[in-house]
Amino acid sequence: MRTTTGWHAVAGTLRQAPVQRRELRPDDLAVRVDYCGVCHTDLHAVRAGDTPLVPGHEFTGVVTATGSAVTDFAAGDAVAVGNIVDSCGTCAMCLAGQENFCHDFPTLTYGGTDRHDGSTTLGGYSREYVVRDRFAYPLPAGLGPAGAAPLMCAGITVWEPLHSLGAGPGTRVAVAGLGGLGHLAVKFAVALGAETTVISRSADKAGDARRLGAADLLDSTDPARMADARGRFDILIDTISAPHDLGAYLRLVALDGTLSHLGHLGPVTVETLDLLVGRKKLSSAGSGGRPATAAMLAFCAAHGITADVEVLPSAGVNDALERLARGDVRYRFVLDLSDLD
Amino acid sequence: MRTTTGWHAVAGTLRQAPVQRRELRPDDLAVRVDYCGVCHTDLHAVRAGDTPLVPGHEFTGVVTATGSAVTDFAAGDAVAVGNIVDSCGTCAMCLAGQENFCHDFPTLTYGGTDRHDGSTTLGGYSREYVVRDRFAYPLPAGLGPAGAAPLMCAGITVWEPLHSLGAGPGTRVAVAGLGGLGHLAVKFAVALGAETTVISRSADKAGDARRLGAADLLDSTDPARMADARGRFDILIDTISAPHDLGAYLRLVALDGTLSHLGHLGPVTVETLDLLVGRKKLSSAGSGGRPATAAMLAFCAAHGITADVEVLPSAGVNDALERLARGDVRYRFVLDLSDLD
Repeated sequence: MRTTTGWHAVAGTLRQAPVQRRELRPDDLAVRVDYCGVCHTDLHAVRAGDTPLVPGHEFTGVVTATGSAVTDFAAGDAVAVGNIVDSCGTCAMCLAGQENFCHDFPTLTYGGTDRHDGSTTLGGYSREYVVRDRFAYPLPAGLGPAGAAPLMCAGITVWEPLHSLGAGPGTRVAVAGLGGLGHLAVKFAVALGAETTVISRSADKAGDARRLGAADLLDSTDPARMADARGRFDILIDTISAPHDLGAYLRLVALDGTLSHLGHLGPVTVETLDLLVGRKKLSSAGSGGRPATAAMLAFCAAHGITADVEVLPSAGVNDALERLARGDVRYRFVLDLSDLD
Repeated sequence: MRTTTGWHAVAGTLRQAPVQRRELRPDDLAVRVDYCGVCHTDLHAVRAGDTPLVPGHEFTGVVTATGSAVTDFAAGDAVAVGNIVDSCGTCAMCLAGQENFCHDFPTLTYGGTDRHDGSTTLGGYSREYVVRDRFAYPLPAGLGPAGAAPLMCAGITVWEPLHSLGAGPGTRVAVAGLGGLGHLAVKFAVALGAETTVISRSADKAGDARRLGAADLLDSTDPARMADARGRFDILIDTISAPHDLGAYLRLVALDGTLSHLGHLGPVTVETLDLLVGRKKLSSAGSGGRPATAAMLAFCAAHGITADVEVLPSAGVNDALERLARGDVRYRFVLDLSDLD
């Protein structure tokens, strides 16, 4: 085994301790983790008391060693890794490049089960990660590695629906919730050429919304403005993580439009009439396959898009989680793991 | 007022009694109702004890008189009327030809509120109906008027999702539930060129499914066959009227496919993961706008499609409702109103 250092969750708190990594398989890369984003999922996992738990599933770093069969990467390469590190490779979804929907369930970057040795995967809040080469992505030159880390989970999660639903010139996109996911959705939608509106109950985010490129901020606490916006948006990306009434947002969707609901896992309830009237669709998204992830990174490189981040030394991880829990971040915490050396 | 005869709901039973119709407005037609389909909605309304209530919102007949401004119809014309008889005509949905989504709510054929005199509309279980000309449709020659009546509610309800979701050659369509809606969905999907499968818990309907043109019947009570059909269908038209687990059906939907849920009004609950995995969409449908209704009738005329009906004298309406409640009809009851003369 290889030994590195990372942040283990123990009774709701992260503590620095050694992390064991497997010896490299032929198709493995060892990656020195430089920056790892802090995702809401990490917070949920820590609070749920999952164990063993080293969170972190959106990170960037540099290849330090390669397995004997690796041909696409070499030591010194800048890479990015997201929330999936393996899949069966043979089911219809994997063959379609949708490894995130692998019928045999994809191996998650942490809290997953390694397909070969059955161990529980440990995530990117650590100085080294060992990853199968197919699930590492070359980090395009010009993308800052701290701001690029959140692209690998928050970014791909909003890219998938925007891309698959056809956001672009002539479409009207709304992004509900201006947080880690939302601010990237705005950047993507704007860069794709869509007319983009932020929906938020925080009218004081209007300046930020415009700085990100949005045409407008729709205050969801203003009934008159919400009524006026009925049927306005072809695509509504709902990133609100707290439970909320989907009907109020479905009513903003245009004829044949789609509400893509990202902020929540579990059951959601909708009134049939809210879908029926206007022939609207409800979808959900999370993560993406290898081709979509690579396409998103290429798009980000072409448009100079990274996340707006607050970088902390990894020793500040408990503070970051606490602030994330109360929404005190614009818009994503990223841990700098170099303090673990 | 004009006086005709019809079937009024009184304490859960339909009784023959006079029905008052308005004098013709300039854009009105008087229609002699020959055939009226019996829809599940009628059953619900009768059981709910709505009053005043004359059910019936899918009927065919012949124009007997026209208002002074009517130019598109004349006495003697065969016409069909569905479940909408007026709309505001000025909102974005009406202007888009989606009067069924009128922002000011469309006027329903029965149980609606007339936009001019505020009266409650009384439906097609009667020998005469007075309808605004825009909401009557010429009945194409060659379509039998009894079998055509159910096209106006059951038909358009399944046509809308099949058409808007792009059912056609190269698409795989499943129709869950082989009843009034389902059997028409199968006929449409087959005529549109889609590979069509019926999903039913009644394996004894396999013969009917094939006779309607379906390639196969998938027995929903057979876990092995259901598992084998995972991800198979681009479009799944769910016509099951009883509450049921949508997850089992969403799992049959292919990548980027849509489940259109028709059988139920009210809240529906889905697991986010059932949508997320496979990037699936949930939609709902009911009724249609004027252009879609006209297009559906033209399609039916071109392909010789009408409903499979059991025609009863209108005096048999209570028996029809009772049998409908227990699913004893293949596949739609139609009342012959000529016994009211």
